[in-house]
Amino acid sequence: MTKLIQITEVGPRDGFQNIQDPIPTTLKMNIIDNLVAAGIKHLEITSMVSPKAIPQMADAREVIKHVLHTHPQITPYVLVPNVKGAQLAADNHITHVNYVISVSPLHNQANINRTHQQSLDDLYSIRQNLPELDITLSLATVFGCPFIGATDVNVMLDIIKFADEHGIGKITLCDTIGVATPLQTLRILRVIQQAFPSIDVGLHMHNTHGMALASMAAGLQSGITRFETAVGGLGGCPFAPGAAGNAATEDAVNMFNRMGFDSAISLEGVLRVSALIKETIDPNLLSSLSRARTYSEFNFDSAHAMPDNDHGSIKYGK
Amino acid sequence: MTKLIQITEVGPRDGFQNIQDPIPTTLKMNIIDNLVAAGIKHLEITSMVSPKAIPQMADAREVIKHVLHTHPQITPYVLVPNVKGAQLAADNHITHVNYVISVSPLHNQANINRTHQQSLDDLYSIRQNLPELDITLSLATVFGCPFIGATDVNVMLDIIKFADEHGIGKITLCDTIGVATPLQTLRILRVIQQAFPSIDVGLHMHNTHGMALASMAAGLQSGITRFETAVGGLGGCPFAPGAAGNAATEDAVNMFNRMGFDSAISLEGVLRVSALIKETIDPNLLSSLSRARTYSEFNFDSAHAMPDNDHGSIKYGK
Repeated sequence: MTKLIQITEVGPRDGFQNIQDPIPTTLKMNIIDNLVAAGIKHLEITSMVSPKAIPQMADAREVIKHVLHTHPQITPYVLVPNVKGAQLAADNHITHVNYVISVSPLHNQANINRTHQQSLDDLYSIRQNLPELDITLSLATVFGCPFIGATDVNVMLDIIKFADEHGIGKITLCDTIGVATPLQTLRILRVIQQAFPSIDVGLHMHNTHGMALASMAAGLQSGITRFETAVGGLGGCPFAPGAAGNAATEDAVNMFNRMGFDSAISLEGVLRVSALIKETIDPNLLSSLSRARTYSEFNFDSAHAMPDNDHGSIKYGK
Repeated sequence: MTKLIQITEVGPRDGFQNIQDPIPTTLKMNIIDNLVAAGIKHLEITSMVSPKAIPQMADAREVIKHVLHTHPQITPYVLVPNVKGAQLAADNHITHVNYVISVSPLHNQANINRTHQQSLDDLYSIRQNLPELDITLSLATVFGCPFIGATDVNVMLDIIKFADEHGIGKITLCDTIGVATPLQTLRILRVIQQAFPSIDVGLHMHNTHGMALASMAAGLQSGITRFETAVGGLGGCPFAPGAAGNAATEDAVNMFNRMGFDSAISLEGVLRVSALIKETIDPNLLSSLSRARTYSEFNFDSAHAMPDNDHGSIKYGK
């Protein structure tokens, strides 16, 4: 039996946001169109933030309009850091937002200029004022913070508790600086799943230290089936110039496919988008599959004595 | 309790072998010296092959002489593909060899110009003629072959059986083209461990598809604690130009350290070797840590409620 995976493509937000030069809005639209053509159904298309803070996202309204008009069948997500962003997203007919709070208070302050209390107050207001808005809570710096190192698991649990009590059933654990290990991922997931057994947990890993897929595989072992990735491995963080960015969509799709999971995304389609990005935005993409032969003509698991998708007692997925 | 890991550095063989331009022998020696200074105790320093086939290894004797003379405290390994190579290694006072057979018959033919029978005959002769030689059997294309795709697990088991019957207690599973998934790794290890419970199994992964660390973490879960890696992520295969090479030593050391294992290798020391290689051999190293901030000033696992090295019931290592 094939097990389903949900991949949310975050390249147009997390990826583009880290590109210094302005990307023409038409190129962004073209890339989004090609991602949708590759089978992407969940797509973080932009963020509602101050254009002064992040000029690359200044065309948010145009991007939203294009996606809602051209791709009514997909679910576009918009990242919002506060009440104002959520209201603007809703005003622009967005139904799904990712609301971000950083577990590290220092990073929350640096990243979105808010204390934890202010962030939680905003979340409360959004819940009250926009009850029909589908909110996923994106928790930044769960696995480490560039300022303080380890973040406090109890603070994380308190934030999740607040969300849970206010009807937010989805959280995404973000490895903002890309340092998570598979063991750390297993342990943090276990703590959350024990405390909040019914909450829907997703993973948003970065590949800064090369462990993104390893931690995502650990996530699969813990029953996680929702992952955020960026085509080409775009993204990253300003603290690590030259380092790898988000877990790459093509690398994740390849791993999931090879492990018997189905993301309903075409690897070839995603690789075409990677090639387009390489040509137009960043010639030095660090995703593995954009540099390697895919060997997709082979089924490496079909060898004698290794029947396809027979996971046996090895548990991955739900 | 800290668990021990053995890393065998294969950069001077698997890495250098894939560099087109000749590397000066003195630079090779310098790199080896720095690897030893970083704490590397197991080191595949060269291969005994025809200099016509692999000109980069033509200085094998000089490299061996240097290592035996300068670093009597480490264990140097030499890769050998046949009787002649093993004899030459022994003649040059080498005590440990990695003898390579490819599970794919086509790859064995292309790589070392031998049928399986010829390779096994040679292994038998080496065992007879050089009984004091410590032989590790390196099995190439265990996880996939560039010519035929999946390789036959039963052929692999037959080769291991032959080795086992002839007193070879160590095998290294090599993902020659870098396509293994963590699930595939768990499954192949389980098959081998069930058939040969007392054999010492190591892993030699390539990062072509970005899953090297993921598969090594799966290896840890299966009790594997011996890994071959290459500084800087050097290596790779001629079938994937531009793609990532071997699992990078620095990335592996970082992951192991972070997961509470001890390789007795200095991450900073390995990173100095990476920097030297970047400067002198390949400016575009793809290892993660050579591109990223290490954050080694932090202990990311020290957060409240996540005590250090408390693996709990999550099993990694032996």
